[in-house]
Amino acid sequence: MDHTLVQNRIQTVLNTNPHSAELLEAIQPLQPYDISQIIGHLEEPEQLKLIPNLPIPVAAESLEYLEPEVQYNILQHLDNSVSSLLLKQMSSDAVVDTLLAIHPYQAERLLRLLSEDYRLQINQLMSYPEYTAGSLMTVDYISARAYWSCSRTLEHIRKVGHEAEIVSYIYVTNVRGELVGVASLKEMILASLDTTIGTIATTELISVPAEMEQEEVAKILSRYDLYALPVVDTQKRLVGIITHDDVVDVLEEEATEDFQMLGGSQPLEEPYFKATVWNLYSKRIIWLLVLFVGGAYTSNVIESYQSVMNQVVALSFFIPLLTGTGGNTGSQIVSTLVRALGVGEVQFSDVFRVIRKELITGTLIGASIGIIALTRAWMMDVDPNVTYVVSISALCIVLWSSLVSAFLPLMLHRLKIDPAVVSGPLITTLVDGTGLIIYFTMAQLILHI
Amino acid sequence: MDHTLVQNRIQTVLNTNPHSAELLEAIQPLQPYDISQIIGHLEEPEQLKLIPNLPIPVAAESLEYLEPEVQYNILQHLDNSVSSLLLKQMSSDAVVDTLLAIHPYQAERLLRLLSEDYRLQINQLMSYPEYTAGSLMTVDYISARAYWSCSRTLEHIRKVGHEAEIVSYIYVTNVRGELVGVASLKEMILASLDTTIGTIATTELISVPAEMEQEEVAKILSRYDLYALPVVDTQKRLVGIITHDDVVDVLEEEATEDFQMLGGSQPLEEPYFKATVWNLYSKRIIWLLVLFVGGAYTSNVIESYQSVMNQVVALSFFIPLLTGTGGNTGSQIVSTLVRALGVGEVQFSDVFRVIRKELITGTLIGASIGIIALTRAWMMDVDPNVTYVVSISALCIVLWSSLVSAFLPLMLHRLKIDPAVVSGPLITTLVDGTGLIIYFTMAQLILHI
Repeated sequence: MDHTLVQNRIQTVLNTNPHSAELLEAIQPLQPYDISQIIGHLEEPEQLKLIPNLPIPVAAESLEYLEPEVQYNILQHLDNSVSSLLLKQMSSDAVVDTLLAIHPYQAERLLRLLSEDYRLQINQLMSYPEYTAGSLMTVDYISARAYWSCSRTLEHIRKVGHEAEIVSYIYVTNVRGELVGVASLKEMILASLDTTIGTIATTELISVPAEMEQEEVAKILSRYDLYALPVVDTQKRLVGIITHDDVVDVLEEEATEDFQMLGGSQPLEEPYFKATVWNLYSKRIIWLLVLFVGGAYTSNVIESYQSVMNQVVALSFFIPLLTGTGGNTGSQIVSTLVRALGVGEVQFSDVFRVIRKELITGTLIGASIGIIALTRAWMMDVDPNVTYVVSISALCIVLWSSLVSAFLPLMLHRLKIDPAVVSGPLITTLVDGTGLIIYFTMAQLILHI
Repeated sequence: MDHTLVQNRIQTVLNTNPHSAELLEAIQPLQPYDISQIIGHLEEPEQLKLIPNLPIPVAAESLEYLEPEVQYNILQHLDNSVSSLLLKQMSSDAVVDTLLAIHPYQAERLLRLLSEDYRLQINQLMSYPEYTAGSLMTVDYISARAYWSCSRTLEHIRKVGHEAEIVSYIYVTNVRGELVGVASLKEMILASLDTTIGTIATTELISVPAEMEQEEVAKILSRYDLYALPVVDTQKRLVGIITHDDVVDVLEEEATEDFQMLGGSQPLEEPYFKATVWNLYSKRIIWLLVLFVGGAYTSNVIESYQSVMNQVVALSFFIPLLTGTGGNTGSQIVSTLVRALGVGEVQFSDVFRVIRKELITGTLIGASIGIIALTRAWMMDVDPNVTYVVSISALCIVLWSSLVSAFLPLMLHRLKIDPAVVSGPLITTLVDGTGLIIYFTMAQLILHI
């Protein structure tokens, strides 16, 4: 959606008559996400004029999409009464995210705007370690005691429903606060009003402990196609729920990390343009240095085979081509396997199946590349024996690279190390030197030097 | 969850007394996904004994998780009356996925089990092209005419709700079937029974055309944190809805494709173990050959600088190290940028910001690598001038690789080509030859040869 026109219109109204009906008319067709995009482009005085004129639920949801610093700035400059209402209306996981991202002193100021009860809840939520179920969850869910009737539960929903993030599911707890079931709003409507909620609730439900890692949570939610996942503490008491939209974010984050690791970099902790040059540098240089120092042994390999190269200079022509092919083959395999391990398609127990499959594929690929290499070396008009060396080496290097690339990610996964550390560059560096040894050994054997 | 114990228990019951209460007791704590995993491990006669003993909604959902061929096999061997009920209960997008995956002759047999009306709907759904909104959507939604009262709508939900995939939202249409709003079940409950649904529905809603690409659909649903997205035809008539769980699958699929492409392979169309050796071979060999042929020019570069190398043999020692470093730097950058383009963090209009950022980072990285290269060359006890050549070349190669890797993905994105074709291996190959030219040119300048 192109926001420029609407934004201009809104700016004009804000700077002339902010309380007019025209403002609401301009805003009305927009989704909260779109409003947040416009707010992001307004000057601060305009932002502060716009927000109080929006319906509270719309303003609260729009705020959630903004950067923490922008949220703080707006909340801090608005009337305290308005800010309190907005913070109360925002979903608790969004409030926690913001409070954790801004300076503790700023967070303290915002916390003071909350009611005593809510502040305690938020403080509790802030205490869960990052990247766990607890850090993802919201407390804006609806729960009911098992002995409540449907009509009492509906009454409860009417009272607190406007603050809940979802109302389609009602979480049922016993007197100790333990989660004992879940009922859908649909089932409640289909039941008669005096039925107790405990009897219509499903008692076989999936919940996760607050300390579970977010990646695991995301997998469970998407495997079971759930809309929301209840979170319990060590005493099985319901403490929050995680909704599907947060999980999409987690899956995206994890995929982004794996991408960056596969490219041979430590994962960035922030979006690309948020990352400073220093962030980029420090995440990248570590692996580059490891690879550089690790790759330095290629120099020793070449030096030690110098006499071979001196006798047949043409051998040097094909060094980058052969090492490159080994690296490319490996890079294809590790990217496929790292992803397959990540989404759970492959386990360590499959190691022999994987190696077998990759070696057969590698034979086909090595043979094809070998034939092309033969043609290529022949085109360069070098000693026919050198063409054989290049061709046979290409086949052997592809096979060797396939073996290493099939084994290593599975092995690391087994050792509970993220297999994405076997990046394309790492595998390239690993097979560069060994590929050269294969090449020069072949040369010695075939050329009798 | 470990299914082996439960599976053994279920198998024992099935083979002795399949109609006993013990079977249901064993099954009851399980989610449909878990049941599907067990069904997948049973023998066919056991599968056919188990399914009819499950409650229809549970059996239908469990079936959805199985492979199309397994689904077909079960549905085809069960009593026609049972199969009809199951197909009716399964969500329509799952039925369509299965029908499209099995042989048309088999699909025809299953279609005959559907009622006339439903068959028409399914045929309609099957006609949408793959990877579009139409192919993802289900027709199991609840819609109401705008003039209906809440009580009439609730009546309608009670009648058709058990077949709907979601009931939390009611899609409101006018007499021409055009989508005019959406009402949540919660709003309906909060409203009085004689309110017309049209008055409580939100009229500003997001819908997508049936022909929209699935990647775009997934982005919209996750950007706006929606639970479901209505799909309309060219006349704006409501034809289906897409639910959040399908979108998670799409996002995962797209990420997997990008992974494989970044690794330098064409994306596989099936999970790893489903892919045959021939699939793997044909997806990989194309790029390997392109890269091999493209990389072959490195041989010409080395050949043409043969006289330089003959004079200073030590230059050859550092060839793999320098080309490797150029490739590694490039690989880090393209993986970060391809992902950032994929999730919409970066656009072509940012090209100068990106290049600037990468060149500054590249200078820092190049300087660091240059210093290490100096140390490394000095350790190998070669001519000091060669150490300068290696060190300065390392800096220049890193900078050159940064420039190419920053520009190329953005350029391709601009040209509507998937930027993931700029794989690590492609960038490595591209900067291998140019890196060598930089290296030998530096050698000529510094060593005066």
